[in-house]
Amino acid sequence: MSKTAAIIGGGVIGGGWAARFILNGWNVQIFDPDPQTERKIGEVMANARRSLPGLTDLALPDEGTLSFHDTIAEAVSGAAWIQESVPERLEIKHKTFAEIQAACASDAVIGSSTSGFKPSELQQGATRPEQIMVAHPFNPVYLLPLIELVTTDADPALVETAKGIISSLGMYPLHLKKEIDAHVADRFLEAVWREALWLVKDGIATTEEIDNAIRYGFGIRWAQMGLFETYRVAGGEAGMKHFMAQFGPALKWPWTKLMDVPDFNDELVDLIAGQSDEQSGMHSIRELERIRDNNLVVMMRGLKAQDWGAGALLNAQEREMRVGTVHGAVAADLPADQLVETAHRTVPLNWTDYNGHMTESRYLQAFADATDRFMAIIGCDAEYISSGGSYFTAETHIRHLDEVHAGARVTVRTRVVVGEGKKMHLWHEMYEGDRLLATGEHFLLHVSLETRKSTPPAPHIEAALVRFAAGHAGLPSPEGLGRSIGAAK
Amino acid sequence: MSKTAAIIGGGVIGGGWAARFILNGWNVQIFDPDPQTERKIGEVMANARRSLPGLTDLALPDEGTLSFHDTIAEAVSGAAWIQESVPERLEIKHKTFAEIQAACASDAVIGSSTSGFKPSELQQGATRPEQIMVAHPFNPVYLLPLIELVTTDADPALVETAKGIISSLGMYPLHLKKEIDAHVADRFLEAVWREALWLVKDGIATTEEIDNAIRYGFGIRWAQMGLFETYRVAGGEAGMKHFMAQFGPALKWPWTKLMDVPDFNDELVDLIAGQSDEQSGMHSIRELERIRDNNLVVMMRGLKAQDWGAGALLNAQEREMRVGTVHGAVAADLPADQLVETAHRTVPLNWTDYNGHMTESRYLQAFADATDRFMAIIGCDAEYISSGGSYFTAETHIRHLDEVHAGARVTVRTRVVVGEGKKMHLWHEMYEGDRLLATGEHFLLHVSLETRKSTPPAPHIEAALVRFAAGHAGLPSPEGLGRSIGAAK
Repeated sequence: MSKTAAIIGGGVIGGGWAARFILNGWNVQIFDPDPQTERKIGEVMANARRSLPGLTDLALPDEGTLSFHDTIAEAVSGAAWIQESVPERLEIKHKTFAEIQAACASDAVIGSSTSGFKPSELQQGATRPEQIMVAHPFNPVYLLPLIELVTTDADPALVETAKGIISSLGMYPLHLKKEIDAHVADRFLEAVWREALWLVKDGIATTEEIDNAIRYGFGIRWAQMGLFETYRVAGGEAGMKHFMAQFGPALKWPWTKLMDVPDFNDELVDLIAGQSDEQSGMHSIRELERIRDNNLVVMMRGLKAQDWGAGALLNAQEREMRVGTVHGAVAADLPADQLVETAHRTVPLNWTDYNGHMTESRYLQAFADATDRFMAIIGCDAEYISSGGSYFTAETHIRHLDEVHAGARVTVRTRVVVGEGKKMHLWHEMYEGDRLLATGEHFLLHVSLETRKSTPPAPHIEAALVRFAAGHAGLPSPEGLGRSIGAAK
Repeated sequence: MSKTAAIIGGGVIGGGWAARFILNGWNVQIFDPDPQTERKIGEVMANARRSLPGLTDLALPDEGTLSFHDTIAEAVSGAAWIQESVPERLEIKHKTFAEIQAACASDAVIGSSTSGFKPSELQQGATRPEQIMVAHPFNPVYLLPLIELVTTDADPALVETAKGIISSLGMYPLHLKKEIDAHVADRFLEAVWREALWLVKDGIATTEEIDNAIRYGFGIRWAQMGLFETYRVAGGEAGMKHFMAQFGPALKWPWTKLMDVPDFNDELVDLIAGQSDEQSGMHSIRELERIRDNNLVVMMRGLKAQDWGAGALLNAQEREMRVGTVHGAVAADLPADQLVETAHRTVPLNWTDYNGHMTESRYLQAFADATDRFMAIIGCDAEYISSGGSYFTAETHIRHLDEVHAGARVTVRTRVVVGEGKKMHLWHEMYEGDRLLATGEHFLLHVSLETRKSTPPAPHIEAALVRFAAGHAGLPSPEGLGRSIGAAK
């Protein structure tokens, strides 16, 4: 399958799709008659480059190419995925699909970013209706993983292809069982939006207060468990049935405005827009985007460390990315007379401090991750650790030689200085390209996790360690090895 | 004001209130006729102790006391805050308020945890209706900061007192402008719940798919910006009016089920409960609670580092906690011939690794925070840094001497080894009680943030540094100072 995607309609949503594909190594061909498209896509790409690569602990592939085309026919040429993100008017969508299908491969996925239309509506009058499906993303598309995949009479093989591609982009294909207006998520958003408009109109709370009611309460809950699992926990030991019995009667109570929608007039628009100005007007949209992305990165990296929710998806993507590379290799695959590449990653957005560069503790986090990776290479992996053996770090010496910033790709290469019995003395070098950023020298002892005392490692681990120690002994001694802080001045 | 709170009704919600008060130094008096109350409160307290103290970078005050009482009169004696969390039946609430008001101080806040009743309903027949208000929290109460404060004809001074107490507990008082059934947040939860029941009933998506639709998409957005600010960003440069014009017509489209609610029968209950079992049945409720709390901690600490949303509330609470303590002091307040206490904090939940103890990079994070605090003490604070001067760490040496776990309170004391011109050589000692956990030796240089080269600090900073260097020179040299890793073995 060619790794070429066509983006038809290059606004915020189309640009987000373009960024997802390009940063995952796809070539992207764009069609949009708007003369501002190149600037708009450039802005989304800049945001995406700043935030997406740092979500994983392994660098994404080299970027694909980006090209702009004058016709739909040219843009869809050779594309395995064609994404339609044109305005939400059915006649425009139908005309666009006709042009796409006149020129595209018959085995390409044609996805629509529509928020509301059902696939059966999109397919009306199409040459090959089975090729068209809803693939509805969420803004910012380059960070949020949800794709609502909605199909009606689609080619089953093509649906499987679509799911595979979505997953390979680090996203989650939610394949609805049936088509429905507005799919799933936007039905919730619409329900909340209708209720929120009433609350503002009736003077119960301002837009800012409503946002606070969400973000200090159920929003931060929903970000990691959603609705039903949250309620499951709330039900406690008595369980979900108990919870439902308790809250069932509320369905008949006047707890929402329900059917009745407010008059959507200028007065209401001015009220909402005015309160929003007061709440957020001190930040430009650009600033708000950065703040939002910083927040999303820090939360999603947090969830990644917990291996839960959106973070578990990042880990699954990363495991896939390791397959067949040096970052998934074991000791026997690696030469013993060369330093071992133990990390290759992008510095995340939130690793920067008030001095405008990667903060010191994140160097140790990166070196510690590199040590973990080296341990896994020699056989001290999660399975071995769960059997009761591990290494504890006794001592660390870090030299900060040059600055590095969020978004930089860094590589750690590791040397075994001493590897015998319980002892493991490692030397890490962190580079950005040819620029040496820092060295980390670490003395570790193998321990029993039961007694918390030092013990010899399993024979296969010691053998792998000794092999690297012997191989690395022939390499020239690095500058700075064994130095104390007193000697450094 | 006495720091005594009475908790009337000791379930999950009452227990969460108790934990909030106790962990913030209040004495708590509990009344609940349920013989299981002591066990239930103990379980909530254990969860809260595990997660709440690590949210701040400064330890919370010493815990208050916890006592159980046989009558409401005894429980409310001497209490400045009385929180009612009895079952959601108005006649039970009225009876409870009558007993409370027969015994409590007339200037105590009486808060109700009700999800749905308006304060005017709660006040019916009360001796002093102006004393009763809604203070509606969100589960888990010990972590989530939102309190919906709803008042009708309340004593204005008492409302201000209530807001002050809520804020002092690290929570956010959302004071509604008018009373309304179900306040604000639960109206949204109810709207989404109704829609979600239809989606499951109609076979569009399972409970797990619906949860994924929330937590991989808008949930993680809402956790940090809520509804209106998210849409403001989505509107882009064209702004909020443009966004509303674009989505206004959808109010008339069939995007929600609205008025019509599903029959709440056994079939629906079994369907929902069965899907929930399939989705989450592999985890006990206890496990799910821990997973949830880990996720909330990591997200909230992430947002704290961003100083945004719920994290900004933590920072505000922490600033207040520093006032009048050694952790808010400047150099002139501190003796020069003693080590400087630069940190006193609880190890957060998410600082633990696969070896079951605080992971190595978090030691450096804690030492780096201690260095930041020492810099602030000598005058290199945020204001000075924004004027263009700062310190960069050139070299670090850490010795890990003993293990420490999440929930432990640790203290860092700091010695100036060398402090002259551009040079600052610090020695940190990290203790849990009398137990030395680790030492951190750090060599820093004062730099210009414009040229990124070393330069002398401002005279007042050098003077403060030299004063400590001279004072600390008279102290005995610590074991391990100046050692290299080679020498450590």
